[in-house]
Amino acid sequence: MKYSIKSIKTNLTTLIGKTVTLQGWLYAKRSSKKIHFLQLRDGADILQCVVGVDDVNADIFEMTDKLDQETSLIVKGEVRKDDRSPLGFELGVSNVEIIASVTRDYPISPKEHGVAFLMDHRHLWLRSKRQQAILKIRASIITAIRTFFEKEDFTLVDAPILTSNSCEGTSTLFNLEYFGQNAYLTQTGQLYMEAAAMALGKVYCFGPIFRAEKSKTRRHLTEFWMAEPEVAFYKLDDVMDLAEDMLCYIVSHILDTNIRELTVLERDIDALRKTCKPFPRISYDEALEILKQHGKDTVFGKDLGADEETIISKQFDRPVMIHRYPAECKAFYMARDPQNNKLSLGVDVIAPDGYGEIIGGGEREHRLDVLEKTMEEMSIPKDTLEWYLDIRRYGSVPHGGFGVGLERTVAWICDIKHVREAIPFPRTMERLTP
Amino acid sequence: MKYSIKSIKTNLTTLIGKTVTLQGWLYAKRSSKKIHFLQLRDGADILQCVVGVDDVNADIFEMTDKLDQETSLIVKGEVRKDDRSPLGFELGVSNVEIIASVTRDYPISPKEHGVAFLMDHRHLWLRSKRQQAILKIRASIITAIRTFFEKEDFTLVDAPILTSNSCEGTSTLFNLEYFGQNAYLTQTGQLYMEAAAMALGKVYCFGPIFRAEKSKTRRHLTEFWMAEPEVAFYKLDDVMDLAEDMLCYIVSHILDTNIRELTVLERDIDALRKTCKPFPRISYDEALEILKQHGKDTVFGKDLGADEETIISKQFDRPVMIHRYPAECKAFYMARDPQNNKLSLGVDVIAPDGYGEIIGGGEREHRLDVLEKTMEEMSIPKDTLEWYLDIRRYGSVPHGGFGVGLERTVAWICDIKHVREAIPFPRTMERLTP
Repeated sequence: MKYSIKSIKTNLTTLIGKTVTLQGWLYAKRSSKKIHFLQLRDGADILQCVVGVDDVNADIFEMTDKLDQETSLIVKGEVRKDDRSPLGFELGVSNVEIIASVTRDYPISPKEHGVAFLMDHRHLWLRSKRQQAILKIRASIITAIRTFFEKEDFTLVDAPILTSNSCEGTSTLFNLEYFGQNAYLTQTGQLYMEAAAMALGKVYCFGPIFRAEKSKTRRHLTEFWMAEPEVAFYKLDDVMDLAEDMLCYIVSHILDTNIRELTVLERDIDALRKTCKPFPRISYDEALEILKQHGKDTVFGKDLGADEETIISKQFDRPVMIHRYPAECKAFYMARDPQNNKLSLGVDVIAPDGYGEIIGGGEREHRLDVLEKTMEEMSIPKDTLEWYLDIRRYGSVPHGGFGVGLERTVAWICDIKHVREAIPFPRTMERLTP
Repeated sequence: MKYSIKSIKTNLTTLIGKTVTLQGWLYAKRSSKKIHFLQLRDGADILQCVVGVDDVNADIFEMTDKLDQETSLIVKGEVRKDDRSPLGFELGVSNVEIIASVTRDYPISPKEHGVAFLMDHRHLWLRSKRQQAILKIRASIITAIRTFFEKEDFTLVDAPILTSNSCEGTSTLFNLEYFGQNAYLTQTGQLYMEAAAMALGKVYCFGPIFRAEKSKTRRHLTEFWMAEPEVAFYKLDDVMDLAEDMLCYIVSHILDTNIRELTVLERDIDALRKTCKPFPRISYDEALEILKQHGKDTVFGKDLGADEETIISKQFDRPVMIHRYPAECKAFYMARDPQNNKLSLGVDVIAPDGYGEIIGGGEREHRLDVLEKTMEEMSIPKDTLEWYLDIRRYGSVPHGGFGVGLERTVAWICDIKHVREAIPFPRTMERLTP
């Protein structure tokens, strides 16, 4: 019978007093002359294994004393009740066998390391408690996003990564040769989702996105994941409702399933609990007013940067929605406000505590003539986007959606300062390895 | 109150006789002098809307007669019981309003079109019943894969797309300039999953994969999705058990949730129902024997191609597992069979009916010295894979996993001949648009 720490915990009452065998790695060790306390991690949990000098033969006791961190082990012992352990039990060891020793000094010791060093050893750093907690919360957030959209009758439609069209600014495009043609790595799946929404009504994609940003801020990765819902017949208010519902669902799911990991990360859980409806919805004009009150004069027409977003987010205890930006701040496909043609029907959702924009979206321009005119004004090349214009040629309808950045959402929920820890293998301007 | 065809169906008993408004597109039309039957699709369903000459004013009756396919409409009418409809109701129309007409002839008429033409209009082709059925089954298969791994306590760990290392053959790599460095698009997430499995025990990734294959077969895409589980302490038999359990789970989920779509596709559902444990498990040697019996002499050491896979798959009514291939057919990281050093502990799973290999995997070589020797023999550059070798330097343990190709699995389950229909926006050697 194969045991894991979790399976023992699940069947604890029947296993107390029984002898079991576990496989795993040595996470940490504390020793005295007569006893070694081994922290054995098996991938899912960490268990205290107690090696007493009288319980194993002398060779094994000595060998155990010399074990390096991350040595892989087979440990045999008796399951013993232990009320001080969060698991409720420990292992009284009768035998320890080495699967493989550590051939060099394990580079990540409990002492402090610089971030560059840790990132160079990302493949090993993932073994630490803190990084595992982040990865588990990331996986839970992904599950929550997918479950939310499925529950709301969305169909997942994967957008392509390799495209022949660019639309979010050509300066941040990665390009490559594709059998003699020029191809780009996708910057957004939105255009494809608009086509799919005309077919299936409610759709979303969820995949990696690429932006060759020459920026070294704590909010930027060159490769990150984004979920992008798009819905036929949605107006700006519907888009805001959907974003709000989704974020509340994510946070509620994490509070239900990941308290253990949030605790490892020392996340302020009460602050997170405030993520409830309704979120404040302020217009760009109102945002400028708030900035002015805090000594920051921003000219109408300028997009809000990280500093501005931080000031605004600090006025509220939950995510805040800023809508109706000046049209010139937003992409060519944004619908204009019928009340004021200078404004776009776009919305950004800003996370609390300065984590910045986690969602951007809005209503799309669905009138062919207006869209063509804007593309001309903004010098967007039409030839590779004829297919996109077809959406407006064949039964066009109002529609809208948004993109939610996964890593920024993870950074906010985990309360980590830099998005590079929010993805298993980060890619930045200066990092392509491991 | 906003209605959808689905919401009416759900609340049918209370809505019979009530007037509702629906939005959607004209899917098809059948007319006589006194009556028009409009098939209105709203993304999720198609509803028959009956326009009687005496029920609407004359202008609207005439306008309705001229409606083009895919015109977007607002239709108002009374919910009427209709036992012949699969929905159980139809709409007795009192008003029709055009949201947007069709500015050119809709290119995809009910007549037959060539595949190249349909693929050029993929953004519109998605609106057809058949393509929608495939997309919905694809989405369900993805849900099934993710649910299966979550249920089995796997943690999702996204592998990077941009990498500095190549390992599945440099001839099929896409490469690009990355801030002055050379980067590749990933061909597999496996190496990263091996690192993650040492941290979290049971992990999987699920994302797009790229292979610049100069091949025009019906089984190849340059961009496709792959799920790749990897588990610490797994041996070849565990890998085969996992693959078998996953495929049974997927098929059972599709049979539970997508009978409607399978019916649209005219899939032989009884054949699909045979996907139950146990799957036949034959060695490469036994596979050669079967091929010989069917007049195909294959030399030991040669990988099995599409023709060979088809012959073997036709001997069985469910997926077949072929294990212990000659080591020279498999990648450098495959473990050798301790019983016969010429064989690798790899396994391929071949779908029924000639759909080919849908899974490839096996046990990995976990001994540093053996792995380094093989890399030397196979001329695999070590410099960009030092991090991968670290996995064997710091508490190496036996481990294994596999990759399941999403599009081939979709093609098999949907019974479609070419994988290009199994992905929303296919990319092949000759296709980068729309």
